[in-house]
Amino acid sequence: MLYELITKNRSYRRFYQDKAISESTLKNLVNLARLSASAANKQPLKFILSSEPEKNARIFDNLAWAAYLKDWPGPEEGERPAAYIIILNDTGISSPYPQVDLGIACQSILLGAVEKGLGGCILAGLKRKKLRELLNIPEQHEIMAVIALGHPKETVVIETADKDIKYWRDTEGVHHVPKRPLEEIIFKFD
Amino acid sequence: MLYELITKNRSYRRFYQDKAISESTLKNLVNLARLSASAANKQPLKFILSSEPEKNARIFDNLAWAAYLKDWPGPEEGERPAAYIIILNDTGISSPYPQVDLGIACQSILLGAVEKGLGGCILAGLKRKKLRELLNIPEQHEIMAVIALGHPKETVVIETADKDIKYWRDTEGVHHVPKRPLEEIIFKFD
Repeated sequence: MLYELITKNRSYRRFYQDKAISESTLKNLVNLARLSASAANKQPLKFILSSEPEKNARIFDNLAWAAYLKDWPGPEEGERPAAYIIILNDTGISSPYPQVDLGIACQSILLGAVEKGLGGCILAGLKRKKLRELLNIPEQHEIMAVIALGHPKETVVIETADKDIKYWRDTEGVHHVPKRPLEEIIFKFD
Repeated sequence: MLYELITKNRSYRRFYQDKAISESTLKNLVNLARLSASAANKQPLKFILSSEPEKNARIFDNLAWAAYLKDWPGPEEGERPAAYIIILNDTGISSPYPQVDLGIACQSILLGAVEKGLGGCILAGLKRKKLRELLNIPEQHEIMAVIALGHPKETVVIETADKDIKYWRDTEGVHHVPKRPLEEIIFKFD
């Protein structure tokens, strides 16, 4: 059952933009992150939510998409995310591993999204200075990542990686993600 | 349902040591990590599995436990983990965010463990040099963390943090974890 959620939880980048996501749904997702593990239980992460079209549009302008798809500048109008969760690191809290916390939080949020029929993508290619101004983020908080969310409008398939791990999109618009095989990532301990 | 898994997924540090965990269970858990998101799909993480008592004992000697519990040196014989997953970063792969990948992988593995009636804890306080020798880890691989696993033999409860976020253990041996409230971690965006 978790296996199903994890295989369904692909990085989706095209959405039914007009299918809205409520703020209370976003709060439920952040609550999953809140209840997850945090290094030394420091809990340095803070969250900004956006689910209104006008706010979403302003955030969208500060995001970079899918580095391996050179000819694709990102989702076009109509296929953009219906919501965002911006994740900050409160440096005043001095966590030993904020990035590990970020990974844990993202996984909780995205698995929760998939369970609700949503999907999303973690974006780290950001115009951080502009985002900081737009969202009025105090200096003490570092912008770590943005999770884009929506009802997915694309098919993503997992494949076994030969050597190249770059994801790619075929002529039908299906997104392919090569994953290294289990034999390659497990080391023996004798 | 995911909410239930996440609330059950506490950091457990005492286990029924003689309740074994099979290597195939560990492989299933690593497979959940394998199928999870990875920054730029680089997949730099490698995994070493240990489920045999003699190997476990050698790993145990290189772990530090629960920094906030000053009077507790870690689980005593009989309550130690029944298995370990050691997670490495293959620096030859040059991921932009190996620690985020680590967080995602740990969350997938631990949620999978909880679903199977197991539990665990992410440990980063490690005697890295000794572990490297013991496990014969090539220079190119950085030891990131060890996940300790077993059938939990303790009760862990979540509380709402007032100010202090240090976890603590009461006289009954119940482990208390204060989590910051939702209002504290969500910022407004107007």
